[in-house]
Amino acid sequence: MFFIRVCVKKGLTPCGFRYFCGMDIEIITIGDELLIGQTIDTNSVYLAQVLAPMGLNISRKTAIKDQKDAIIGSLNESFKRVDFVILTGGLGPTNDDITKSVLQSYFQCGSRIDESVLEHLRLIFKNRGPELFEINKMQATLPDCCKTLFNSQGTAPGMWFMKEGKYLAAMPGVPGEVRAITEESLIPILAPLFKLPPALHRTLSTALIPESIIAQKLQNFESTLNGCGLAYLPSHNVVKLRLSRKNPELSEQKFKAYWQQLIETLGDWIFCEDDLSMSEWLLNLTLDKNLTFATAESCTGGYIGNQIVQLSGASQAYLGTVTAYHNNIKEEVLGVKKSTLNSHGAVSSETALEMVEGLCRLFRADIGIATTGIAGPSGGTADKPVGTIFIAIKFRDKISVKQYTLRGGRLDFMIRAMNTAMKQLKEMI
Amino acid sequence: MFFIRVCVKKGLTPCGFRYFCGMDIEIITIGDELLIGQTIDTNSVYLAQVLAPMGLNISRKTAIKDQKDAIIGSLNESFKRVDFVILTGGLGPTNDDITKSVLQSYFQCGSRIDESVLEHLRLIFKNRGPELFEINKMQATLPDCCKTLFNSQGTAPGMWFMKEGKYLAAMPGVPGEVRAITEESLIPILAPLFKLPPALHRTLSTALIPESIIAQKLQNFESTLNGCGLAYLPSHNVVKLRLSRKNPELSEQKFKAYWQQLIETLGDWIFCEDDLSMSEWLLNLTLDKNLTFATAESCTGGYIGNQIVQLSGASQAYLGTVTAYHNNIKEEVLGVKKSTLNSHGAVSSETALEMVEGLCRLFRADIGIATTGIAGPSGGTADKPVGTIFIAIKFRDKISVKQYTLRGGRLDFMIRAMNTAMKQLKEMI
Repeated sequence: MFFIRVCVKKGLTPCGFRYFCGMDIEIITIGDELLIGQTIDTNSVYLAQVLAPMGLNISRKTAIKDQKDAIIGSLNESFKRVDFVILTGGLGPTNDDITKSVLQSYFQCGSRIDESVLEHLRLIFKNRGPELFEINKMQATLPDCCKTLFNSQGTAPGMWFMKEGKYLAAMPGVPGEVRAITEESLIPILAPLFKLPPALHRTLSTALIPESIIAQKLQNFESTLNGCGLAYLPSHNVVKLRLSRKNPELSEQKFKAYWQQLIETLGDWIFCEDDLSMSEWLLNLTLDKNLTFATAESCTGGYIGNQIVQLSGASQAYLGTVTAYHNNIKEEVLGVKKSTLNSHGAVSSETALEMVEGLCRLFRADIGIATTGIAGPSGGTADKPVGTIFIAIKFRDKISVKQYTLRGGRLDFMIRAMNTAMKQLKEMI
Repeated sequence: MFFIRVCVKKGLTPCGFRYFCGMDIEIITIGDELLIGQTIDTNSVYLAQVLAPMGLNISRKTAIKDQKDAIIGSLNESFKRVDFVILTGGLGPTNDDITKSVLQSYFQCGSRIDESVLEHLRLIFKNRGPELFEINKMQATLPDCCKTLFNSQGTAPGMWFMKEGKYLAAMPGVPGEVRAITEESLIPILAPLFKLPPALHRTLSTALIPESIIAQKLQNFESTLNGCGLAYLPSHNVVKLRLSRKNPELSEQKFKAYWQQLIETLGDWIFCEDDLSMSEWLLNLTLDKNLTFATAESCTGGYIGNQIVQLSGASQAYLGTVTAYHNNIKEEVLGVKKSTLNSHGAVSSETALEMVEGLCRLFRADIGIATTGIAGPSGGTADKPVGTIFIAIKFRDKISVKQYTLRGGRLDFMIRAMNTAMKQLKEMI
């Protein structure tokens, strides 16, 4: 159980034990795919999450083309502002991967073969079947002025450079490899090098309350803040509020007093006092109370269930989902009556109610969540425009069915539906 | 039907009609949430996708803190390199949103009230219930040297500045609002202003073939390329290859000849000749052939079904999913025999087979896809380590069950599973 709790609650940054705000660092990502919209950059999100608790704050991220001039220009600019830069991408085995040779010329050094990387490549290609290709063998050749950051998950090793008080970590761009190199090779170097206490910030969330209304409630509170900043992070009907120390002189005690004041001012507008996603909140809740849950999803297409399965430990509480996209499935699997579908339509409180009842019968779950609605862009009517959704929740003997109108594209609609359902569930428990 | 086809195939960039490579632009995103890992930047991915076909190539993206110095410093640096910058974020109604005042001082102008924005705010707050708050009313006050970029989806308008041959578009950071402002207000300004023909590039995809083996096969082809570049975009057992014109002098005819040569060299290693996601490929396939499909997912937790539902038009082919996370659901909903579960285990080819058979009986689908495996991080055994997955696919009377080992975290595992299943399906159809 311990592992799950830690994993699910990883969003919460522990409070600092000394009055220090950490060190600014920059991230440079290399690769046309990030610029032409083919790839979403999740690496820097991951890096921010693991490095912030160590007091390393990312103050700038720059995405550039895989061109020598762009790489060298960005490194020069970044090292004017900060002492530590992390660079990802452009370390693969193919011709468009130029980072290694650019860094070798940037740091003006020769090259060496890393025997442990060569051995690792041999093992990988032995397991994969084909012979060890010359093109991959080249990946064991590294600049001789860098330390190897071993990559257990792939063929391209990371590199660690130190020169005249400046530090550079270079890693391939594949997310799983960034994680492996960071955890297995980079953090063990950083931890003793930068003896930095964690930064001081905490985040809470509200649900279904507009940002401007929260801001009005907090006007007085914000005007009293001194040495602390409050950031509003709105997303899909949830507004997260992050209080962070801006002045290193501000004591931890004073910070805690501000936090307490924020909590009291917001009162029952607070959805959760930790920086959890809605899926983490739901899994925490069900694990804490030893409850099981299942979902019957039409318009949300299994989104709610899948968000839960993305968390380790989901199997302790989550039983499963019926994505009843076609009406036949609502009838035949969930037992929604044909007469209900005919007289009220698939998008109705009556159908949502029968979906959740059928779900809880079928899955014998403590909590059932059912959704039916119109995600758009087509399918809306005057009565039930695009964005209409009915959410039915059953918690033991209690049932609640509510209608909402949600904005945005199909994925936005699903995310808002999940957030709205969690708020509806919270009010029942 | 027309709408669906256009929407699903949107990834394909039309070929250029003139020999021109477009204009470089830069994106600056403002907001601590992007730096501390609380938000993933999808706006710049969207912007790249809609602007590239107009010949506007994003050459750099920079994410910075919401601090005046950082904003002004970045604008100065960007305008040294390019003539057009798009800036997102920091335009909300709260105190941490400073972009508007910084831009007003950057462009040295006064302010004005935009009556159409004020009217829009009145309408929004009439519908939302509460009175029009002073804090939101401020959002109708704009620098008097900018044109308003109307925001139909939210309260913060975008702004368009032109000065001495430099252009700046500023928008709020909420993805739905970026889309609305871009499509409704920005593109109508850009289209006549930059009469740029589209850039010239095309992308194909391969599946389950390592990048280095593809690179070896393409060594000769790449050495003959002149005025064109080939980029490798590996992700989750799929490698996309993007051929793009680098030299404006290269004719479209020559570009097409290179593309044809690439197609012939790769032969049946090609999964798809368009830049489609796997879910787009599956939906296209089923719509083209007038087939229905459904999924029974254990370890992938409804991921495959949900990827489909995220596409408009999914309801024409997709029937639904049973996410049978708990073994009871495999038995009771899908009809997997208890004896099969007991003697072979939930993660076995026998269970996968019975899952897909039960699914197709229940849903009467032309194509059924079933997954069962161990996503990790725990649950592995010596026989069936973490990453083991059995995928069963039924297409009419044919059934294929295969075992794979997939790497990565839980989400990585699901994405690889989807990609692998699509390759397995393609071989059957």
